[in-house]
Amino acid sequence: MSRNLPVNAKRIAEDIEALAAITEPGHPWTRRASPLFREGRSYLEARMKAAGLETRIDAAGNLIGRRTGRKPWLGTIMLGSHSDTVPDGGRFDGIAGVIAALEVARALSDQTIELDHDLEIVDFLAEEVSIFGVSCIGSRAMTGQLPEAWLSRVSGDLDLAGGIAQMGGEPGVLAQQKRPDIAGFLELHIEQGPVLEAERKDIGIVTAIAGITRIEIAVEGRPDHAGTTPMDRRADALVAASQLVLDIRNAAAELARTPGHFAATVGEFRIEPNAANVVPSKVVLLIDGRAEIRADMEAFCRWLDGHVEKLATAYGVRIEAPDRVSDNLPTPGDAGLLSTLEAACERVGAKHRRMASGAGHDTAWIAKVAPAAMIFVPCRAGRSHCADEWADNDDIALGAAVLFEAVREMDTDSKREKANGTHTG
Amino acid sequence: MSRNLPVNAKRIAEDIEALAAITEPGHPWTRRASPLFREGRSYLEARMKAAGLETRIDAAGNLIGRRTGRKPWLGTIMLGSHSDTVPDGGRFDGIAGVIAALEVARALSDQTIELDHDLEIVDFLAEEVSIFGVSCIGSRAMTGQLPEAWLSRVSGDLDLAGGIAQMGGEPGVLAQQKRPDIAGFLELHIEQGPVLEAERKDIGIVTAIAGITRIEIAVEGRPDHAGTTPMDRRADALVAASQLVLDIRNAAAELARTPGHFAATVGEFRIEPNAANVVPSKVVLLIDGRAEIRADMEAFCRWLDGHVEKLATAYGVRIEAPDRVSDNLPTPGDAGLLSTLEAACERVGAKHRRMASGAGHDTAWIAKVAPAAMIFVPCRAGRSHCADEWADNDDIALGAAVLFEAVREMDTDSKREKANGTHTG
Repeated sequence: MSRNLPVNAKRIAEDIEALAAITEPGHPWTRRASPLFREGRSYLEARMKAAGLETRIDAAGNLIGRRTGRKPWLGTIMLGSHSDTVPDGGRFDGIAGVIAALEVARALSDQTIELDHDLEIVDFLAEEVSIFGVSCIGSRAMTGQLPEAWLSRVSGDLDLAGGIAQMGGEPGVLAQQKRPDIAGFLELHIEQGPVLEAERKDIGIVTAIAGITRIEIAVEGRPDHAGTTPMDRRADALVAASQLVLDIRNAAAELARTPGHFAATVGEFRIEPNAANVVPSKVVLLIDGRAEIRADMEAFCRWLDGHVEKLATAYGVRIEAPDRVSDNLPTPGDAGLLSTLEAACERVGAKHRRMASGAGHDTAWIAKVAPAAMIFVPCRAGRSHCADEWADNDDIALGAAVLFEAVREMDTDSKREKANGTHTG
Repeated sequence: MSRNLPVNAKRIAEDIEALAAITEPGHPWTRRASPLFREGRSYLEARMKAAGLETRIDAAGNLIGRRTGRKPWLGTIMLGSHSDTVPDGGRFDGIAGVIAALEVARALSDQTIELDHDLEIVDFLAEEVSIFGVSCIGSRAMTGQLPEAWLSRVSGDLDLAGGIAQMGGEPGVLAQQKRPDIAGFLELHIEQGPVLEAERKDIGIVTAIAGITRIEIAVEGRPDHAGTTPMDRRADALVAASQLVLDIRNAAAELARTPGHFAATVGEFRIEPNAANVVPSKVVLLIDGRAEIRADMEAFCRWLDGHVEKLATAYGVRIEAPDRVSDNLPTPGDAGLLSTLEAACERVGAKHRRMASGAGHDTAWIAKVAPAAMIFVPCRAGRSHCADEWADNDDIALGAAVLFEAVREMDTDSKREKANGTHTG
């Protein structure tokens, strides 16, 4: 890389490589299991300490490295992401952001820059869906948003409270947690999509983290004999559901062509009785919908409710009203931070664009209690959550440089001071 | 019933009820497991003996009741079906035909009618797909068509040879079996479809047992992130497969509108990875095709081969050439017997129509070595292979009367004598 960056690209590469290498043997890049995850955390903690950070595990089980500022009453500038992984998908997802954040702290020290604010580098606990079936444990819990009922979710002999305790957290006091001091939060993450690479952009400035709405639909037909039942006397649940899949795709593609990210995917789909010689009697499918603009999701759901009724009539099947099994609102990035990030991109010469995040991130939870935003760096072919996930280190280093410049501006920007204390989420 | 029939409807009802009641407790109407099946056979054997029949188990494990004729060198007129069941579906399927056949023998005795031919009433072994994953064991083995390799198919501790032996058969000599003496074979069965009921016909005269062709297709896309991958950058295997399901249905419906029964059903369908937030990367589906006319199936397969190529291009997925995992030809009923059955219907005043059987039956295997045909009686709403399968006893009794009249004609018909000995299958 020819650019003269305020961060050390080689150091970033070494740390990402070392952390990724802490993986289930024969199953790269996987760092879910507790002992292995703690091994990664030990590495991280050592690197934080080597960077002069004071480390601790908070009540939520997050690993935090702290650099005290000159005016700590201004609050904390926080940078972070997560070091846990989905199976196979942990080579860059999460750790690129943790290491880039750590590099910002190191670069500040290298250049003997003192900040007014405290600076914290955070490795959030269990961002990915864990063995307990839920996600973003650390960021939810740090901000008082972890549903208390979740603590008794069980996997094998362990409940989530026990899991948090194993990681050094204090599940008993979580209900009282809600960090009041976050002046601003930034996260770097790989895009997990193909847009930046295709458009040859260096940085995506995330305007919003899409809301995720999951909708279950059951299509019920009749299990007739596949050999003897004439084609025109069937109530074939698979045929009706197939039409529904195509219609959902087309409706989503139409909404995607209007401003604001929108996607809808049928990702789970099972048929009954699933026997060669029986006309399918039932299909249950799950739609995963993502919307940057809430009105898009509402329009989609309205369309869907009406459409399944028409389909049921047309195909002689029963379709119950679509069941919204979960429904999260979009989380916009903080407008001031988006401008700060754009200015930082300009300063380091990064080609940038605004874009939504279709995936969920810890940032979405922090944004509920403090100004927060995130940036994306490109990843190859948009591949993520799989073993061949790849991001170029130069891209990650450029992203770290953007974080560095943004932190410097956040520290001096009086608007941040004003925002702190008045932000209510 | 006001008709004056040559058979005793009450006796038929009592036997069907008694045999159906021999079922797995709490799981009617199921008679698959060996001890229970033998209990049913004991009942049947006792009823055969009470009807004056000489009983035996042949090498294939079929239970046979024999009534000697005056000119046994003319060969054997055979009537039969099966007393085994699919889980839940054994209230009429199979046993209606066995009891109707038995009733013909009883009615002949009641009326002191002696036949020239020997008459045999057969309960074929394991017509339904058994625990060994294959079907029509008794009718295949009686006619030398049981693949020898099947004898070593295993379920638990038992192989098929052992299973046949448990039923009283002699698996060691099956390779030598091929009954040369069948002058004609008839089977009565419930329709397992809705046509007779809908058209208010009493009897379906089965022109052919449809050939069954099973075709597997794998659709391969790309497992992109459902949140981050724009709608227009996906290779969604489920979307492509959904279009394929609809196109298969439409192609089959078109062939069904031309003469000759045709049906095609996607009955097995599974997606990968089947995860809410991942675009489906693979669908494997199995088509069950049934054709009375072989040319229809050939046209369907030709269309399918070309169509999947077009779909793959249109949807940006890979679809390998459809794999015909099994392929059986249609089996036409014996033309002479079809006329005999029509005449018998007229004699007893049964409203009849010619129709194909979409399902497989023992008759298809007997037809390979001897003149054979079958008749259908109506069943409620076409429901079969399930607990609510139902056929009215009056309909079954009328069918038994048709068999009775047909047997009398077969016995006197000189064409039958001529056919015997020259039929080569």
